[in-house]
Parts: sequence; C-alpha cells; structure tokens
Amino acid sequence: MDEKPAVFVAVIGSGECSQDEASLAEEIGRELAKRDAVVVCGGLGGVMEAACRGATTAGGTTIGILPWNSRHDANPFVQIPIVTGMGPARNSIVAKSAQAVIAISGAYGTLSEIAFALQASVPVVGLNTWSIARDGLEDPSMLRVASPVEAVEKALSLAQGNGTGASHVNHIKRQG
Amino acid sequence: MDEKPAVFVAVIGSGECSQDEASLAEEIGRELAKRDAVVVCGGLGGVMEAACRGATTAGGTTIGILPWNSRHDANPFVQIPIVTGMGPARNSIVAKSAQAVIAISGAYGTLSEIAFALQASVPVVGLNTWSIARDGLEDPSMLRVASPVEAVEKALSLAQGNGTGASHVNHIKRQG
Amino acid sequence: MDEKPAVFVAVIGSGECSQDEASLAEEIGRELAKRDAVVVCGGLGGVMEAACRGATTAGGTTIGILPWNSRHDANPFVQIPIVTGMGPARNSIVAKSAQAVIAISGAYGTLSEIAFALQASVPVVGLNTWSIARDGLEDPSMLRVASPVEAVEKALSLAQGNGTGASHVNHIKRQG
Amino acid sequence: MDEKPAVFVAVIGSGECSQDEASLAEEIGRELAKRDAVVVCGGLGGVMEAACRGATTAGGTTIGILPWNSRHDANPFVQIPIVTGMGPARNSIVAKSAQAVIAISGAYGTLSEIAFALQASVPVVGLNTWSIARDGLEDPSMLRVASPVEAVEKALSLAQGNGTGASHVNHIKRQG
Repeated sequence: MDEKPAVFVAVIGSGECSQDEASLAEEIGRELAKRDAVVVCGGLGGVMEAACRGATTAGGTTIGILPWNSRHDANPFVQIPIVTGMGPARNSIVAKSAQAVIAISGAYGTLSEIAFALQASVPVVGLNTWSIARDGLEDPSMLRVASPVEAVEKALSLAQGNGTGASHVNHIKRQG
Repeated sequence: MDEKPAVFVAVIGSGECSQDEASLAEEIGRELAKRDAVVVCGGLGGVMEAACRGATTAGGTTIGILPWNSRHDANPFVQIPIVTGMGPARNSIVAKSAQAVIAISGAYGTLSEIAFALQASVPVVGLNTWSIARDGLEDPSMLRVASPVEAVEKALSLAQGNGTGASHVNHIKRQG
Repeated sequence: MDEKPAVFVAVIGSGECSQDEASLAEEIGRELAKRDAVVVCGGLGGVMEAACRGATTAGGTTIGILPWNSRHDANPFVQIPIVTGMGPARNSIVAKSAQAVIAISGAYGTLSEIAFALQASVPVVGLNTWSIARDGLEDPSMLRVASPVEAVEKALSLAQGNGTGASHVNHIKRQG
Repeated sequence: MDEKPAVFVAVIGSGECSQDEASLAEEIGRELAKRDAVVVCGGLGGVMEAACRGATTAGGTTIGILPWNSRHDANPFVQIPIVTGMGPARNSIVAKSAQAVIAISGAYGTLSEIAFALQASVPVVGLNTWSIARDGLEDPSMLRVASPVEAVEKALSLAQGNGTGASHVNHIKRQG
C-alpha cells in the first residue's frame, strides 16, 4: 500500500495542438504518472487530453477542471471532472490546485495560468511556451526546459523544494 | 480491475456540526464508498470532514473543493484537494461537480448549494436539512429521507435516473 | 452637488416574470432611485429589467452583474454592465456587492442569492418570495414585506443599521 | 444631457507602485474621464487608486472590481465597488468588463489580466509593461505606447474599432 502523499502537477497548454505538442504532453503525463504524481489540467482537448492519456496509460490519476457546465465536456482520460461553470476564470483554479505547473506551448489561456501560478508562488516549468519580460529582461521565475523528462523532473523537484510536496495532509491511497 | 464509471455524490453541510450530525455524515460517506461512489464536498471540517472520514475508511475516494487559497485547508481525509480561492462562490462548483447531492442539516452555505444543485437539475436528497417553500407550498424537488442508508440509496438511484451516472466518459480506474 | 454616499441595494428575482411581478420590481427600482440608492442586479430580463427600468426612469443608477461573456446581454436599462463570465456563480457577487437585498418571487437562482446574502450578513427583505425553514421553524433572518414601498424603506433602514450605508468610502458624485 | 454611451476602459497595474507610475496612471484616469470614458479597475491601491483619483478629479466615473469580501477594501476614489470575494480570479472580470485595457507596468496579476483581455479579444494598450513572446517573436496583439495621452487615444480608438464602443445598449446618463 502506497501511503506517500501524491504531488499534484498541472499540465497546461492549448485545447488544440499539433501532433508534436501532443506527443510532448503525452510523454509528460506518462512520466508524471510513473512518479506517482497526479495530473491536474483544464480537462479539455489538445495538450490537456494528451497529458491525461499519457497519465492514465501509465496507471496515473487525472483531474480535469472544466470551464463549462457539463462533466461530459471532459476528455475521455479525465478521471476526476470538476465542473466550474466559470469559463476561463477557472484557469486560476488550475494554477492554485497544483504544486508545480508544466506549460507546453499554449495561447492566452495558458499565459493566464502561468501568471496565476507565479502570482501564487507555484513553480512553473516551460517547454516551448511563452516568454515573459519586463523592462527588457526576461522574467526568471519560469524555468525553461528542453524535454518532457526534464520538465517532469524539474517540476517535481521544485514542488518538493516548495515544501508543499511533503505534505501528509492529502494523499491518494491506492490498493495494490 | 473495476472499470465501471464512478458516480460522484456531493455531501454538503456545515463546517461545524454536532456529534450526531457527524455520525450521520460519516455513515453516508462510508455507504457511498461501499457502493463505489466518489464523495465530493467543500473540503473543510464538520459534516464535510465526517463524510470524507467515512469514505476513506471504507476505501473510497474523496474530493474537497476548497474555498480559500491553500490545499492545507483541507481536512485530513480529502484525497483530491481543489483550491479555488473563490470563497463561498465555490459552492456552485460543489453542486455542479456532483451527479446527486446529499444535504445534512447545514446553514446558509448549504442552502446556497441546494439552490445551485436544483438550478442545475442535479437531484438533491435532504436529511434534517432546510425546507424551502414558495407560495406556502414546500418545493417538491428536494427528496427528504430519514436515514443515511436511505439518503445514499436515493441519491445513487436519482443519479442513475438522471442519466449522468451511466456515462463512460469519466471513471476512476482502480488497481486491485 | 450631492456628496452623500449612495446605498447599494440589490433587487433579485427571475429573468422571466409575470406582469404583476414586473410592476412590483419597477416600483421598487423607482422608489430606490428616488431615495438615491443604486440598484444592483443580475443584469438580465424579468424582475432585473423591470427594476432597472424603474430606477433609470427616476434618474437612478443601475448595475448589472452579468453571468455570461457579453455586455450586450444586459437589459437596456443597465448603465454599468459587469461581465463576469461565471454563470450563476455570479450570484455570490450580486449578494456581496449590495448593502441590502430585496427579493421578489424568484426561482432557484434567487434562492442562492438569498442564501449568499444571509451568509454574508447582508440584510434581505422578501416580497412574495421563498420561505426557508429549519427544524420546522421559518428562518427569521429574511424580513417579509407586503409592498414595494415597504420593501424599499425596510431595505434602506436595514442597510443603515448594518453600518455599511454610512460609509464615506465609496460614493457616486453627481453633477447637478 | 449626455446620452452618448460611455466607453468602459480598464486601467490595470500593481497595487503598489512608484510615484512615476502613479503619475502616469493618474493622467490616464484624467484623460479617460475628460473623454467621458468610464474607468474600470481592480479597486485597490497603487496604479488602480491613481487612475481612479485622476478620473474622479476630472468628473469621471470609476468602477472597482474588488478581490475580497468588503466594499471597504476599495480605494477612496472608487464610486462603484463590486465585491467579488473571488481573489485574483476576479482579474478575468476586470478584463471582460472593459472594451479596452490600458496596462501600466504591473506584476503577475497584471499579466493575467492582459492574457484574459487578449483571450476575450479586448484590445490591450501597454505602457512600460510586460512584453510577451512566443517562439522568439513578440506577440503583436498588445499595442505599445509611450505616453498617457497616447494610451488613452489608442485605447478609445481600438474600443471603437472593436465595435463595442458604439453600443447603445448600456450608457450612463448624466444630469447636467
């Protein structure tokens, strides 16, 4: 019986994506699941669906924080659909519910999630995603990585360093 | 391997409650878990904690949709903490994320969740909780029950009848 | 120049209503405006539109806290449209943004607003609306009234008594 | 009597700011008010307060969409406090309630508002604020300006071009 508390990692990106982006997201989902991390996402298609597919294939747990009003909006690999009915404002919940965030490419919605995560001091790891700068200097808070495995390892490391990963408050018990 | 899709049932009630109310909530959580239903709640103490305690004791899954900004606000029996940061407006998410709702006693927050569930056509079962009336007539939408087992059986029956429980879209796969 | 701080009063009720309900709501809007109170509502049709029509006809100010994504969803008498995109979860904002609430008839959405207002200690005055009871006893927190003028006078009186109406923090300056 | 519909422009930036930033924000608020635009903001201090001060000094109207639970959180120049209780997720409402957005410097909250505005096709004008890039190319959707007057003129021009400024649906009638 595994009693170690699971780390929750959000995988964020567009609801429509290229095959290359989907492959990256799927590998990230799979690698997170292999390390017993729970995948949090916005629950829709594209990067979100690929990450959930990867995670469930590897026996992991997936949470989809949906923008609209039906649990049936979730992609087929979401195990825990959360129905917010709040539209894109739910991006704030995706960011806050994670202990680390992995951003893959993405459009403005993804940018809002990066911003909310950084505002809430949730570490963000970026793969081919937005770069954000102020006064001509790139913001150093987002860690750029080059591969899915690096993204996962950095995210889990930062989640631990963040202290939140060590919590015994919440865990998913698995029979095995 | 159990592939049957899980039914999500919200258990709602006050964050502080009597020992009697806690006993009822705990039994409801336990009976839901025995029937492979997932417990959704607001994640805090009182009725919410008792329901989660009952569910986890029986090997079930628990989701806490938290009002504030920290996953550490969750009671110790929440396995999936969702951090909304929205305050009581998160009550709408609790109601929408469930396929049936069981209300136990409760104060105004519980009343708002009953209202949101009925508005979203999510069936509501009530145990010693609010009664609501218009034009001198009690609203018939909430089904009153007399015991935890009856609450659980009615809730699951209504969730099925509601059609949403039969969905194969979302399920929690368990290794066993 | 009128520098007295305005009192904000929410008028809540259904988006579709009878002619009688619309007449009551319009009179309430008009009487609020005559007393320099600002009308807050959900911005849509029915009771909300009638209240805004009454208020603007009497030279008042109207705020519509809209559930969806377009300011064009507002009824023609909303002067300040707030676009939440949150669906019915915006009901919490309607309740919190008011210093007193007047409920006219209404369905489940109205019931959720009554609950949120009472939870936030915002006084509620009811005209032909929901009655709510626990343990067989009607909840005394909502004050029942019999006419629009009584509704307005009680609401303004309770808003003052609530202390929030006396604030000099926020006011609407009017050129005159 | 001025019956021309008012244009709603959000001024976004940090709750704490330098004197230079406050001066820019105040001038922007003043210039917006001179052109009969309504100032929408997050209602707190810093850039938000300076913009509201500028607008009210010039006889304008100011709306503060507050993150927390009290209207008393509003800065003294907010005339219409909207109490969301949603924390930073209210940034989505600030963006959606505007027909154009002017960003001044700002931190992650401002970045989330920029993202939400662009996602909702609300034009964004930036003054010394974030730059955002994908694939090494700065995103062209945000228009960079060099002065408060230019910011205001561009914002109003884009709001008109956006079609939303011409609406007769919602307007603020002023006695004069």
